[in-house]
Parts: sequence; C-alpha cells; structure tokens
Amino acid sequence: MPLSLHHVPRALTWHPETRTLRIIDQRRLPEALVERELCTIDEVDDAIRTLAVRGAPAIGVAAALGLVASAAREAHPTRASIIAAIARLARSRPTAVNLPWAMARMRQVIDAGDADGALLLDALAAEAARILAEDIAMCEAIGRHGAALLADEACVLTHCNAGALATAGIGTALAPVYAAMAEGRRVEVIACETRPLLQGSRITAWELQRAGVPVTVCTDSMAASLMRDGRVDCVLVGADRIASNGDTANKIGTYSHAVAARHHALPFYVAAPSSSIDAAAPRGSAIVIEQRDADEVRRVGDRALAPADVRVHNPAFDVTPAELVTAIITDRGIRRPPFRFTA
Amino acid sequence: MPLSLHHVPRALTWHPETRTLRIIDQRRLPEALVERELCTIDEVDDAIRTLAVRGAPAIGVAAALGLVASAAREAHPTRASIIAAIARLARSRPTAVNLPWAMARMRQVIDAGDADGALLLDALAAEAARILAEDIAMCEAIGRHGAALLADEACVLTHCNAGALATAGIGTALAPVYAAMAEGRRVEVIACETRPLLQGSRITAWELQRAGVPVTVCTDSMAASLMRDGRVDCVLVGADRIASNGDTANKIGTYSHAVAARHHALPFYVAAPSSSIDAAAPRGSAIVIEQRDADEVRRVGDRALAPADVRVHNPAFDVTPAELVTAIITDRGIRRPPFRFTA
Repeated sequence: MPLSLHHVPRALTWHPETRTLRIIDQRRLPEALVERELCTIDEVDDAIRTLAVRGAPAIGVAAALGLVASAAREAHPTRASIIAAIARLARSRPTAVNLPWAMARMRQVIDAGDADGALLLDALAAEAARILAEDIAMCEAIGRHGAALLADEACVLTHCNAGALATAGIGTALAPVYAAMAEGRRVEVIACETRPLLQGSRITAWELQRAGVPVTVCTDSMAASLMRDGRVDCVLVGADRIASNGDTANKIGTYSHAVAARHHALPFYVAAPSSSIDAAAPRGSAIVIEQRDADEVRRVGDRALAPADVRVHNPAFDVTPAELVTAIITDRGIRRPPFRFTA
Repeated sequence: MPLSLHHVPRALTWHPETRTLRIIDQRRLPEALVERELCTIDEVDDAIRTLAVRGAPAIGVAAALGLVASAAREAHPTRASIIAAIARLARSRPTAVNLPWAMARMRQVIDAGDADGALLLDALAAEAARILAEDIAMCEAIGRHGAALLADEACVLTHCNAGALATAGIGTALAPVYAAMAEGRRVEVIACETRPLLQGSRITAWELQRAGVPVTVCTDSMAASLMRDGRVDCVLVGADRIASNGDTANKIGTYSHAVAARHHALPFYVAAPSSSIDAAAPRGSAIVIEQRDADEVRRVGDRALAPADVRVHNPAFDVTPAELVTAIITDRGIRRPPFRFTA
C-alpha cells in the first residue's frame, strides 16, 4: 500500500486566516508529541534558540512565520518594532544560513515601500507564505529527483535528521524515501543514532515510524558491519554546506559512513537544498568546523558517561571529500562527479 | 617522566595472608571510585553477574580468588559446598570462556586428591594465586611485545575497554601503552566512547586518566575524521575471540575502525591473550554473535533516546576480517598475516 504523505509529521503548520504558527516541540521527542503555538517574539526566539524547532530550512521558515504571527498579535506593530524583531530573530542561532537569509527577505519587504500597519502586515504575511511554499516545493523536488536513485526495494542508511522535522516539507535526505514510498515502493531505513545529540534515534526514527516507514535504529558504530552483512543498499544523508567542488560538510559521523560505503562499494548520496551550496567555498577545507561543548559527549541528562574533566573531541560537523560522493541531489536535479558548482 | 605502573588502577587486589579479595566496583565508574570486599559466594556471584567486575580475564581471576575468600570465611567448608560454589560461579556470566576455564582449574584441585578442610583450602588458594599471577604475566608480556610496535611519540586510538580494569594486570590492548609510557615514551590515547554501553568513555578514559596517560574521548563516529586529520598513528583494540585465520570478534564498532584505518593506510593492531585464540573456529563466520537487549540503545538510565517500541539492531560484537589486521599481539609475541593459528 502506498504511503500517504499526509502521515508525514510536519515540523510546523501555518494557519493563514488566523496567522497562527504551531510547531512540534522537538525537545520533547521521542517521549511526547507536544505541539506549541508561538505567539510572541520571545516565544519564537526561545523556540529557535532551545531547538524546539530545528533544522536549517525549518528555522528560516519558522522565523519568517513567527515574525508575522507575533506582529499580528501586537496592539500597535510599528516598522521599528518589526525591524527590531527581525534583527533579534536573525541572531537566535549562530550557524544556519537560512535564518539570516529569511530575515533579509522580510526586511526587504519593509524596505521596499512605506506601508505601515495592516498593509505592511499583509505584505509580510505574503512573503512569509512564499518562503514556506518554496521550502515545501524544494523538499518535493528533492524527493522526486532522489526517488529515481532508489531501487524498488531499498534499504537506505541515514545519519542525523534531514527529514520532515528539519524542514517545512517532507525533508531533504528523507524526501526521496517518502516519495518512493508514496509511489508504492518498499523502502526501509536504518537510522544511525547520531551521537552525541542523537537526532537519528530521537527524531528520524520517530518521524519515520509516525509516517509508517519501516525503520531500525543502530548505533553509529554498527553501520559498517551492517554494510558488510549486505543489509544496506545505499547511504543517503543531508548536508549543512556543500563546497563548489562537492566536498560536503554534514553532521559529525557522516564521513565514517562515506568511508564505509566506499569500502563496501555502496553508493553514497547527499541530498540538500541548492541553497546549501556555497559556491564561494572552493573546497571543504574552507569550511570552518564548530567545536561544541564537551559535556554533550560527557553527559546524557544528569548521567555522567565519562570522567567530568576528561578531554573531549566534539566537532559539530565533518567534511566528506567529493571523491567519496556518488551523487548530490538538490531541488534542481541530480549532479554526479566531477562536481563544479557555480554561484 | 616515565609513567610508574603503580598508578595503573587494578580491577582487583588479593591479600593472601587474610585471603581477602577487593574489587573496584565498575558499575560506579566514572562517577565514584568505590572498592568492595567480596566475602561470600553470593557477593562474588553478584559482582560478576552485575558487571561490578568485568572483562573476560578479570572475571576468571575474580571467580577463582572469590571462591577461596568465601570458603575461608565459612565455618565448615566442605568439598561438596566448594564444588557447588564452583558450579554456580561458572554460570555467573554466559559468554566469557575464562570463567568456566578458571573454575575447571579449581575443580581439578579438588579432584586431584582427597584433601579436606584447611589443606584443601591451602591447595585452592595456591591454584587461585597461580591463575592471578599468570594473568598479570600475560598482560606484561603483551605490553612488552606490543610496545615495540608503537612509535616514540604515538597517538593510539582504541575502542571499548581492554585495559587494566578488564584484567588482573595492566590490560591487553592498553598494556603496550602502559609499557611504552613506563619506558619514558610519550603515548597518548583516543578513547572511542563505545556505544551502547560506553565502556570507552566510562572505563578506559577513567583508568588512563588515573594512570596519568593523556586521553581524549570522542564518539565512535569521530574516529574516521580524526584519522583523516592525521591525528591517529594506529588503532589498537582487544579481542573477544580470534579465529584460526585471524578473523577477530571484538566489541561492536571495532570493524568500522578497521575499515577507516585501512582507508587512511594506518596500522590496525589486535592485542589479546593467546587463550582468546579459538583454533577450532576456522574463520570469523564460525563465531556466533550475541544480539543484546534493544533498550541498551533506546535508553540511558531513565532517559529515552529513541521511540520506546522502535526496532533496534544491537549485536554485542562484530568480526573484523583478517585482511584488515596488521598484526596480532599476544603474550607469546607478534604475529603478522597470513595468520594460521593452531591449537
């Protein structure tokens, strides 16, 4: 039975009549499905900052819609108050490029005329709705292109969460899985847990299960032996940033799967919005890798997993060199090596 | 300054005058160093069963010494009560071969004559002390042979805990590190955390820190990118079982490090007691891999890391094929491929 895409959970929903933004509070996953309405700039800022909403595409969309939702609930929203809110939301997370990009688009609406009050709010709502629609369409295009790479019965290994819960649509790396399932094909997913923050076991496994896609969780260290046992048909991951030569920065651990895929002669696919391509970065070595807090590795909740003062290596990302990448799937289509992305 | 081996923690200590066995309670690591005295068969059985003492060599030694300690504290130990205790301890963990092996040696002491009372106890104490001394000597021999493979300044990546806390001596995979440090060489260790049970971050990091060896913890998924960055000189791991062709079963995740080491042209060493060689197993495919409880992956303490009912892949071990192994270090020396171990 084909999967209905209606069962794919949505990171956020927008109700244009009431200008209401609802999100799934991803901090509570997988233990509870809690939806929250974001009504004020404080709430939007807090949701982004604390990862209640996460994933570069999703937070850009959430910031744009949240700006409109909060302005619509203010007694007297002014150009100045909205401009201040834009500046604040643009800073709510440091890394993702989508956040300042979405806020720049909202700012352009303000700068484009001298509308004020309800007229300005209408123009901002229209722009936010366009950002939302573009994100949904981007996911669908990646799904359509990527599904063509999957066999009719495929076992896809993925890492981290580049799924519906990271976007406003059906995801990036998981979009081809959903698209193939919607065509009635049989796809199953192995979700690597993705230490240290466990987005794979917490979020990817939850959303796939919810959508009705067969999913198995494993630790990151099990991927290679699953490949050796013939249990994996391809690796399919997202990307945080792609250099113009195809080198791909993605969640730490991605590179180890790329090495293992090459060793076992399996395809390694990257799926990402074309906006993740950074044509200004000639190669992966130009991408700065953020080092994160040691306690992400040393603790889970209040449980010590390592000596409190032990030295820890905790980069947020690694870079997979283009020579290990079989194809890059974007909303614009499928690219194969040699990669040469231009602005 | 050379490391003094006196700082290497000991999984267990034996006081022959008082026939007293003390262990480090490894369930409490890394949060607390708690030593416990094991005085009764119930306490010995419980310590082995609940992993207070763990590591195949250590539990064989602990069972032999614990048998003597508990018999010495009984009012009237009989041949029958000691035989029953031996049978019970031999079953306290299912997998490790050292436990039934050590118990068989103690049983032979009983079967060898008709001594009873204090005389029998003396004979059992002497045999347990021999088992202890042999284990300490085995570790030292592995350390001596293995240290020759390390450069004067080396960064060793290891997985799980094949250290002092898994043996009665200075460990197996970590023995070459300790031996090289004791010679005044500069060795540092990268300890992969070893999901799901985290023996690397909890135990290996703790014992190395305690011993004064520089150690950095990383998640298992970071090993490949550390190799790519030139931060690793070799991989050195233990083994649960080695087939006669050199295929090596060890803690899950070992294989992914072997694949990554090969990709980066780094040596991959296995260190283990010669008793871990199973000449009856012609190759790794003959080794049965235990599947463990899904909640080891789905939960840490009372914290859910994945949906409660999600399917999980959780093998205890993986098998690294001999062609990825640069050398096997045992107490008998260093072997290089092609491996052909005989009984």
